[in-house]
Amino acid sequence: MITNHADIFYLTGIELEGFWLVATKHGCAAIASPMLAGQIRSMKPCFSVIESENMAKTLGLYCRKQRVRSVEVDCDVTTMALASRLKKFVSLTAVPSPLTPSRLIKSAAEINAIRNACQIAIGACRYARNLCKPGVSEADIHYKIEEYFARRRVKSSFPPIVAFGQNSANPHHVSGKRKLRKNDTVLMDLGCIWKGYCSDLTRTFLLGKITGLQLRVFSSVKRAQQAAMKAAEQGVFACDVDNAARNLIARNGYGSRFIHSTGHGVGIDIHEAPRISAKDKTVLKAGMVITVEPGIYLPGKFGVRIEDTVLVTKNGCKILTKERK
Amino acid sequence: MITNHADIFYLTGIELEGFWLVATKHGCAAIASPMLAGQIRSMKPCFSVIESENMAKTLGLYCRKQRVRSVEVDCDVTTMALASRLKKFVSLTAVPSPLTPSRLIKSAAEINAIRNACQIAIGACRYARNLCKPGVSEADIHYKIEEYFARRRVKSSFPPIVAFGQNSANPHHVSGKRKLRKNDTVLMDLGCIWKGYCSDLTRTFLLGKITGLQLRVFSSVKRAQQAAMKAAEQGVFACDVDNAARNLIARNGYGSRFIHSTGHGVGIDIHEAPRISAKDKTVLKAGMVITVEPGIYLPGKFGVRIEDTVLVTKNGCKILTKERK
Repeated sequence: MITNHADIFYLTGIELEGFWLVATKHGCAAIASPMLAGQIRSMKPCFSVIESENMAKTLGLYCRKQRVRSVEVDCDVTTMALASRLKKFVSLTAVPSPLTPSRLIKSAAEINAIRNACQIAIGACRYARNLCKPGVSEADIHYKIEEYFARRRVKSSFPPIVAFGQNSANPHHVSGKRKLRKNDTVLMDLGCIWKGYCSDLTRTFLLGKITGLQLRVFSSVKRAQQAAMKAAEQGVFACDVDNAARNLIARNGYGSRFIHSTGHGVGIDIHEAPRISAKDKTVLKAGMVITVEPGIYLPGKFGVRIEDTVLVTKNGCKILTKERK
Repeated sequence: MITNHADIFYLTGIELEGFWLVATKHGCAAIASPMLAGQIRSMKPCFSVIESENMAKTLGLYCRKQRVRSVEVDCDVTTMALASRLKKFVSLTAVPSPLTPSRLIKSAAEINAIRNACQIAIGACRYARNLCKPGVSEADIHYKIEEYFARRRVKSSFPPIVAFGQNSANPHHVSGKRKLRKNDTVLMDLGCIWKGYCSDLTRTFLLGKITGLQLRVFSSVKRAQQAAMKAAEQGVFACDVDNAARNLIARNGYGSRFIHSTGHGVGIDIHEAPRISAKDKTVLKAGMVITVEPGIYLPGKFGVRIEDTVLVTKNGCKILTKERK
């Protein structure tokens, strides 16, 4: 049984939440509330849609009819409450994110969608950068990015992060009232969703007079990103990509200030498999789309993160968040 | 332990995801990844923040130190996977949405936030209505609503539903390419989030020449909404409000075409307790904020839904989505 709405979108193209897909050896069906059943039928006339006021009970009846003893459920999204409701009618087998292996490798159409999302994100970032004049607030820029996306008929893949000065030292800063000053570091992390697929992009700008420390940190992050991108290709472990960035930053003396993993998969979800972390042993394959986003954060001072969304290929990686000339 | 991010926002005002709050008789703490720990400390200097690479293990150590035997977890948000990870370190007691009783009754500040969100939603709806000229598409209007919200520095509380003609017969229609024709029914369901609190509003407009059927359906829905609002006051059951709307629609011969419940609570979440459904026995109390949104859906023809967000008071209810003169 598939209940994760990103998985349902992956399998069916349907963007609705609140219905389940069930598949057995003999066929498959959707179990939906009366409110959604008609809509799903009209979107997918080929679907067998079972309308139900009590979806758990209906699942039980369906399983009995199909002579199914146990239902595999996605333990990464099924809550304890849903599990205990379902257990009244069927026995459950917990399976972690069953569609991860399929979703890891993107099709040409998926890559194209992500590339489009990346191109719009680049435009938004350039637009936002040009608005960064002393006196504007983080929230000003945040909502200008949202407006930009709405004008291009996409939505944010996550709330844009706009962080000025000291705030850039918080990787997940929430844009606020802080106003831009002329020598500030400006960190912007943003992305959008194009036809169901996400982009993710971070740029850090050093405004005004640049200090030696800023320059050293920026250059460490930039070289760490280059090292990680150089490492990213078919056949290497995800952790090797993380190591490449981490080692470079450590050699520059900022190892303890790189406080997150180097990246993550991007697709229907903004964060999906693989994790580009010190522990992830996923072997990268052509067709995976990941972010490469090392960062150095100096509390009370500033932070730098540089992030691109890249496509893993047979002999390297291709930057999807690269500006087209 | 509180892990639901709406609950965490309710308790702390912090909008970050990915950390946990734990409370015992002797005190409370936040358990957070190294990436979030510093940020939480800077937002809430009074907080005891435990930085952890392995939050489940840290919870186990914390419990041993505090001599806690079992941890109450919210079974409505805790996934099976997290539960089994936690069980390696602590024993769990499943508690459904522990903060629901507190969150049901809104404070004056919360009501004020919802009222502001409602006023912006009304403005967006009026703006969108004025854009409804023959030839525009549902998606055109959808993204104009998103732009309107971004200009007012709020975000949508859910993707706006804009449904033209036959599409209005799907309560959860996904706005698409369908272009407006002069005699269409137009259904718009939208809302925004102001300082963390949601609004929810639906209007149905009958453009051009109105048929007798359209008028009968519209008037049934309107009267059903009035009946439900009349029923909504301190001391009645949530199901009584649903019954009031449902009975009226049934008497008009459309009982089987009212395919969802009459409403739901609104607050930090767009859908929260109570449900205004045939089964919900919650006793309404002053300070609850709910939607009243009956609808009639005629597949292949059109649908009508009228929705307001209302505040329950001691002797009636107050419409928060009412246009201020």
